[in-house]
Amino acid sequence: MNNNPIGVFDSGIGGLTVVKAITEKLPHESIIYLGDTARVPYGTRSKEIITKFALDLAQFLIKRKVKFLVVACNTISAVAYDAIKNSSPVPIIGVITPAVIQASRVSKNGKIGVIGTVGTIKSDTYGKLIRVLNPDAEVYSVACPLFVPLAEEGFANNLISELATQEYLKSLKKAKVDTLILGCTHYPILYKVIQREMGNRVNLVDSSHTTAEMLEKRLKNLKLLGNNTHPKWEFYVTDAPERVYQVAGRFFGEALNGKLKKISLSE
Amino acid sequence: MNNNPIGVFDSGIGGLTVVKAITEKLPHESIIYLGDTARVPYGTRSKEIITKFALDLAQFLIKRKVKFLVVACNTISAVAYDAIKNSSPVPIIGVITPAVIQASRVSKNGKIGVIGTVGTIKSDTYGKLIRVLNPDAEVYSVACPLFVPLAEEGFANNLISELATQEYLKSLKKAKVDTLILGCTHYPILYKVIQREMGNRVNLVDSSHTTAEMLEKRLKNLKLLGNNTHPKWEFYVTDAPERVYQVAGRFFGEALNGKLKKISLSE
Repeated sequence: MNNNPIGVFDSGIGGLTVVKAITEKLPHESIIYLGDTARVPYGTRSKEIITKFALDLAQFLIKRKVKFLVVACNTISAVAYDAIKNSSPVPIIGVITPAVIQASRVSKNGKIGVIGTVGTIKSDTYGKLIRVLNPDAEVYSVACPLFVPLAEEGFANNLISELATQEYLKSLKKAKVDTLILGCTHYPILYKVIQREMGNRVNLVDSSHTTAEMLEKRLKNLKLLGNNTHPKWEFYVTDAPERVYQVAGRFFGEALNGKLKKISLSE
Repeated sequence: MNNNPIGVFDSGIGGLTVVKAITEKLPHESIIYLGDTARVPYGTRSKEIITKFALDLAQFLIKRKVKFLVVACNTISAVAYDAIKNSSPVPIIGVITPAVIQASRVSKNGKIGVIGTVGTIKSDTYGKLIRVLNPDAEVYSVACPLFVPLAEEGFANNLISELATQEYLKSLKKAKVDTLILGCTHYPILYKVIQREMGNRVNLVDSSHTTAEMLEKRLKNLKLLGNNTHPKWEFYVTDAPERVYQVAGRFFGEALNGKLKKISLSE
């Protein structure tokens, strides 16, 4: 038993969908979230810079005595996971592995779709890991550059998002994938419209939920589960223009109002 | 008379819309284009870093003996114009001033709309300059985060772009602006759908065209106009994944095929 907080971090605020899934799965855990909104997006930066930034974020949380680190960002998970793990005194989990394990488990026909940002799809991080777990799998990947702005704009359930979804998922439907990984922390916002377009028989793998599930399992195994009756949630960002408040509310709900604090990483 | 090339640069490939306007306006000029596709987007980076990157780009072109520098990027024009001007041995022009001058000239009711990226709109660079030229102007600004991915995806004229345009321009129509500045080099791709939505009475100010016009005027004044019968167009980028080729083609047309060269800025 350990009531120290769980540390969750992301290059921006997409990771709030992961925090939301954790609060639902593990309601007695305190959480500290840190989003690097001053330097988002990381996707276009070099591996060296992404690793440096990620270690800054991890250090901020480690100083605040977190018991576990959750990398709630596809880019950081793909590029800097080992570096963070090697430098962290506490255990760590990323968003990619839990989603890939779940997809490999639920797919029956071995045809797995992956959607994500241009950077994530180009890196083929999901595809490589899927083929490690299941060498016979057929992986179909599609970059969906409109999905992040659609999620941030709150166009989650209107005709614009429906048409964009139709366009992007066309080839995955044609390939008859039976499982689709939402490989970007923003995409859970578009869950309903994606499920509707793919049809109910296709398993959607929402990496925010699979990450929360694997986190629970690992906390149990390591005897680190908490039992806070009044868990504390803290939210930090490195820059907080009005837009961040708006979008954060959209991703996490009203509960976040007034709780988002701007900090400097040199603090 | 001077037949040296004109140097045009951008953080990415949006600036190709400016190159296209220059080739139409000034068909006897040679052009060297440089897009920093390895480090795009600049919008989220600090002023110091943007200035350093911009000076790198300018230096590359100056070494290649350009006679004039065109900053075909809103972020660089807003943040680093003075630094480039102070360090450049050749004259320079940005995209913001020509558009603002044109808008102030054509607006009859003084109600001017500006659309751009979140960064551009947040900086209020257009608004500030409009109010310098016309202190009584009413400026209405709207960030349109979906427009860059829509333009890059080639969704220039479908229902998705129509619906997004309706949504974003709603408040500008309500404010009865009679002039609308397209404050992002990607937006000329969406010109038709924006004009249709605003109606034919609203003047659209396309900064790629206003920049080409002002460039012509300044070349004339400085006696730097060229008269190449076989002008040479060269296109350089700092990273060239497949997507850059696709999008570049969309922005500039077939003529670009096979002409995009990847270079390193340390060369």
